[in-house]
Amino acid sequence: MKSADLQSPALLLDIDAFEHNLATMAARLPGAKLRPHVKAHKCTSLAKRQATYGHTNFTCATIGEVEGMAAAGLGHDLLLANEVVDARRLGTVVDAGARVTLAVDSDATVTAAAHGGVREVLIDVNVGLPRCGCAPGHAGQLADRARAKGLSVRGVMGYEGHLMMVLDQEEQRAKVEKAMAKLLRAHADVGGELISAGGTGTHHLNVWANEIQAGSYALMDSQYGQHRFGFRQALLIEATVISVNPAGGWFVADCGLKAQGMDHGIPTLIGPGTVRFCSDEHVTVGIDESALGGLPAVGDRVRLVPAHCDPTVAYHEQIWLTRGDDVIERWPVDLRAW
Amino acid sequence: MKSADLQSPALLLDIDAFEHNLATMAARLPGAKLRPHVKAHKCTSLAKRQATYGHTNFTCATIGEVEGMAAAGLGHDLLLANEVVDARRLGTVVDAGARVTLAVDSDATVTAAAHGGVREVLIDVNVGLPRCGCAPGHAGQLADRARAKGLSVRGVMGYEGHLMMVLDQEEQRAKVEKAMAKLLRAHADVGGELISAGGTGTHHLNVWANEIQAGSYALMDSQYGQHRFGFRQALLIEATVISVNPAGGWFVADCGLKAQGMDHGIPTLIGPGTVRFCSDEHVTVGIDESALGGLPAVGDRVRLVPAHCDPTVAYHEQIWLTRGDDVIERWPVDLRAW
Repeated sequence: MKSADLQSPALLLDIDAFEHNLATMAARLPGAKLRPHVKAHKCTSLAKRQATYGHTNFTCATIGEVEGMAAAGLGHDLLLANEVVDARRLGTVVDAGARVTLAVDSDATVTAAAHGGVREVLIDVNVGLPRCGCAPGHAGQLADRARAKGLSVRGVMGYEGHLMMVLDQEEQRAKVEKAMAKLLRAHADVGGELISAGGTGTHHLNVWANEIQAGSYALMDSQYGQHRFGFRQALLIEATVISVNPAGGWFVADCGLKAQGMDHGIPTLIGPGTVRFCSDEHVTVGIDESALGGLPAVGDRVRLVPAHCDPTVAYHEQIWLTRGDDVIERWPVDLRAW
Repeated sequence: MKSADLQSPALLLDIDAFEHNLATMAARLPGAKLRPHVKAHKCTSLAKRQATYGHTNFTCATIGEVEGMAAAGLGHDLLLANEVVDARRLGTVVDAGARVTLAVDSDATVTAAAHGGVREVLIDVNVGLPRCGCAPGHAGQLADRARAKGLSVRGVMGYEGHLMMVLDQEEQRAKVEKAMAKLLRAHADVGGELISAGGTGTHHLNVWANEIQAGSYALMDSQYGQHRFGFRQALLIEATVISVNPAGGWFVADCGLKAQGMDHGIPTLIGPGTVRFCSDEHVTVGIDESALGGLPAVGDRVRLVPAHCDPTVAYHEQIWLTRGDDVIERWPVDLRAW
């Protein structure tokens, strides 16, 4: 099958770019040094490929992701790097034989973990991003309370999400070091073998954590593409040109804002033309007819790079693995919803 | 069941606000004067409620929506208000007994309609939004070509989407009149009984079209809420507070950017607090502790108004009908994907 035979908009994964990204990351952060975040792709078939590169511990963002990963046989060591106030579904996963570690940052979430049947936790520490995580100085006390409730405390986590897009490398390194100093201070009080942090944007320089929770590296998007990491753009959306307006200098393809996350802005067209805006089911692309090739024809296929991979994948039922125009395989996006 | 028993984030439809909106619209645009757009809600159960208010002709944005509406017994008169280059799936729906009318704006899409087995079309006319639609002066010629291919031409459509958020009413009326003059000019050349246009943002003053394609009125969002239309906010997201940071003056709930469309910006919290930003699975809300009530507790539920209803619904598997805290019914969002 050719990609042009797929119903558009179709989410594509360039298999060679994808395998390049997995191999590149595995060389940099082999084995347990990387705990791939499945929130980026929500796809157990993709996670199985990551596992073949030696990454068998995974990070999840939702209870549904934990359940789905365990059901797919990928429950060797799952971290839910997020707080929950009702952990009973996780307890069921633990009872079925998977290893599940849950982030906690308050007495309430410690209690929820214990009541829900989770046995292992990480103390989630705020390292500067205004989101979850206890104060660094409170981590040791929280670990004590967790242990008093019978929970095993495996260590700490702290996500420096506010530093992912600091492009100046010296500035980024200094800021990440400062953020990780908070995490290490907490770890000194908490103990445990895990110091979990990081993401694709800091995977290359966060040497203070002993495992990195990167996910986007496998797919990439135009935002992370601003970094020079050596990852290739693997995730693409293929759309069909449905209308061409030569007088106005634009064409329209059927790849709208219900086919991609828009929080990082509009997608980028591969080839001549500049995306002007997205509607629910349309993308309008401006093009200068004097440009090489000029306007496409109705029925032509175009490909776009999404600005943010995670919320893009979450809109799609499947990812089509492609090599050039050939469709190799279909992977269900089976970890959607909550 | 109470809404607090639902797995969060949960998409809620306030049933009283929703019925108020349907009744309000049915009083303004009874029967065939409104062709509700199902792209807003992607839910055949919801469409069936619209039908009970006398709106039995529907607008769709995707082939999948047409298929699903017909399969649900709502195929009395379906308009696919969008161009497609492969209409074979629509031909199958027609063969099964539904009435399907397809927008066309080019020779290629006319040919696709005829080849696919669609029998009726509307000529889609560009009235100012840089998107689909032929030039007004080209509409008559395109209608002739459609008829020459055996298609029945039911009239014209032209979406003044660029004018939905003109809040000054005199300015909006003047601009819509100018846009609709283009559509009426095209209609004079094309003929047919339908002059289809409009949306929630112009439903109250577009007197030039003889049917309005509004959809958002049923649900509403913070963007359309800027208009004073008398519609109530029916669509809400219920989230659980998972982390509270008194020192920082914020709390975090589990309603992130994978639970809502972000193209119109961040959601609005109901109650004290100001949304600061959304991450994949989180919303961070700033709050002044001196405010009435102060910070919530971990485990509390909060509700938010999405900025854009259409791409919000498209992320969810179901809509929960609620009255206050009581859950009345579950409606599947069964028209997702393409």
